[in-house]
Amino acid sequence: MKNISTESKLTILGCGAAVPSLIRYNTAQILEMDDKIFLIDCGEGTQWQLIKYKISVYKIDVIFISHLHGDHFLGLPGLLNTLSLYGRKEKLTVFGPKGLKKIISTSINIIPGFPTYELVIIEISGNKKRNIYKTENIQVSSFPLQHGIMCFGYHFEYKVSLINIIKDKFEKSRLPLQAAQSFKLGKNFNIENKVYNFKEYTIFKKIRHTYTYITDTLFLPEISTFFKNTKLLYHESTYMNNLLDKAKMTYHSTCVQAAEFAKLCNAELLILGHFSSRYNETEDMLAEARTIYEKTDVAEDGKVFYIK
Amino acid sequence: MKNISTESKLTILGCGAAVPSLIRYNTAQILEMDDKIFLIDCGEGTQWQLIKYKISVYKIDVIFISHLHGDHFLGLPGLLNTLSLYGRKEKLTVFGPKGLKKIISTSINIIPGFPTYELVIIEISGNKKRNIYKTENIQVSSFPLQHGIMCFGYHFEYKVSLINIIKDKFEKSRLPLQAAQSFKLGKNFNIENKVYNFKEYTIFKKIRHTYTYITDTLFLPEISTFFKNTKLLYHESTYMNNLLDKAKMTYHSTCVQAAEFAKLCNAELLILGHFSSRYNETEDMLAEARTIYEKTDVAEDGKVFYIK
Repeated sequence: MKNISTESKLTILGCGAAVPSLIRYNTAQILEMDDKIFLIDCGEGTQWQLIKYKISVYKIDVIFISHLHGDHFLGLPGLLNTLSLYGRKEKLTVFGPKGLKKIISTSINIIPGFPTYELVIIEISGNKKRNIYKTENIQVSSFPLQHGIMCFGYHFEYKVSLINIIKDKFEKSRLPLQAAQSFKLGKNFNIENKVYNFKEYTIFKKIRHTYTYITDTLFLPEISTFFKNTKLLYHESTYMNNLLDKAKMTYHSTCVQAAEFAKLCNAELLILGHFSSRYNETEDMLAEARTIYEKTDVAEDGKVFYIK
Repeated sequence: MKNISTESKLTILGCGAAVPSLIRYNTAQILEMDDKIFLIDCGEGTQWQLIKYKISVYKIDVIFISHLHGDHFLGLPGLLNTLSLYGRKEKLTVFGPKGLKKIISTSINIIPGFPTYELVIIEISGNKKRNIYKTENIQVSSFPLQHGIMCFGYHFEYKVSLINIIKDKFEKSRLPLQAAQSFKLGKNFNIENKVYNFKEYTIFKKIRHTYTYITDTLFLPEISTFFKNTKLLYHESTYMNNLLDKAKMTYHSTCVQAAEFAKLCNAELLILGHFSSRYNETEDMLAEARTIYEKTDVAEDGKVFYIK
């Protein structure tokens, strides 16, 4: 039986919008959840950011691409190519909007021997939230956003039950340590013709981690009902609220809208990201968002957030 | 009349081969020659290297791509896209092997409004050296290399005549400064009904800068005759000579072969580059090449070479 993971970890690899800046790379994130490593979006240079933040490119299990604007996918051909140069054998699945297959096949199929692994590209379409990926404990769903071109958000949910020993009761029983090991696995323990039921010495603890990823989009309060009480919410915040008109015109959101969305969800923590290159600092943006929703933080390249 | 440029400048933006490393970005270079700025190859992340080394992406006049392996062109879609986001209006010409048009149109034509400028992609093919680009003083030619897929080197030549004042003679003449200004432009000077012929007070100086760019290829001594006495030669040097077999197998060259090539050309300076990620340091490689050709240096990201 595998170890039960009690912590999920999000690493921001890049959180800058559109044009390049030395402060921020284009959008990319790594979500480590249960025994899986997910790459969410893959802006140009993601490969270098992975090396910088000491995350092995080989270990990525699944990739999720929000949309086909350059700053969200242009690192993908190079990354897939690198995996091939290193001779990856394990299957790799990439989710993304319709059109992704053609881009990948045009950009790198000309390289002989590519790919060395089974590359499965699953194109998403449609206008409803739907489940797209499942493991024993994880469920990932995609949902449409509004950004001029087809764009999807992703919601990650990890659910597992953990069996914890009731320490006092177990110590009083004077049972050997092997008994505790059995109990933790949900198994009874037999000794000297007596059966000790694991339920008497343990309590169940339910673990539920959720991560909601929303970029690039107009403010969509109507979808917040899907993500009630989400633990971690990343919501794009390209502009401060004085540029609300510009945000609307370019199908983006402001920090105030991101905070309104977090409030509607009652998110445990909101992370603002996808900052316009005009913002060298994000203190003002954070302060503005916190006037609406206190439990707000800002993304920066290399920053790590935990879900517990 | 424009100022005559007496110095050409090559900036290495990236000189690493294939897989990403924190020491070196993938191949890209900027050549500033006469009044033009050329980008030569465009590996992933070139946009960020341009910002880092303070070279404006807007000022690039022409782009030359050697071949369609990811480490030489995957930065191009993002760079072209950024120019569009900034609203470039000036025409941009990109030279590269057959296939480049399709890649560019697939990767970024889905972005509305792209490009805001006239993008001219000229696909090169054929097995002969030929002139592909010309200005008043510059001539660029392409020539085929051998790398498994279609691959081209580029040769840049800048020729101009400079008129220099013979200082002693001019001072003795006691002519006014306006006369010197006329003479420098190749014009005679009239004063008090007397004509002073510019030829008597000036000497011609011929400027000829050449830069030969050769990556990725097997050792091709037979083409060295084209580049006799070239001022600056960049020759790929993916491996040291103990990996000669690997070099041959992967259609690459060793540092010794690069040096042999430079010797055949009698290059004023050889720059080694395109190093395999196994080499953290290049001292040994440089030393090995110098046993064959003393006038050798090594590329590194951000390093600048001048042609005078």
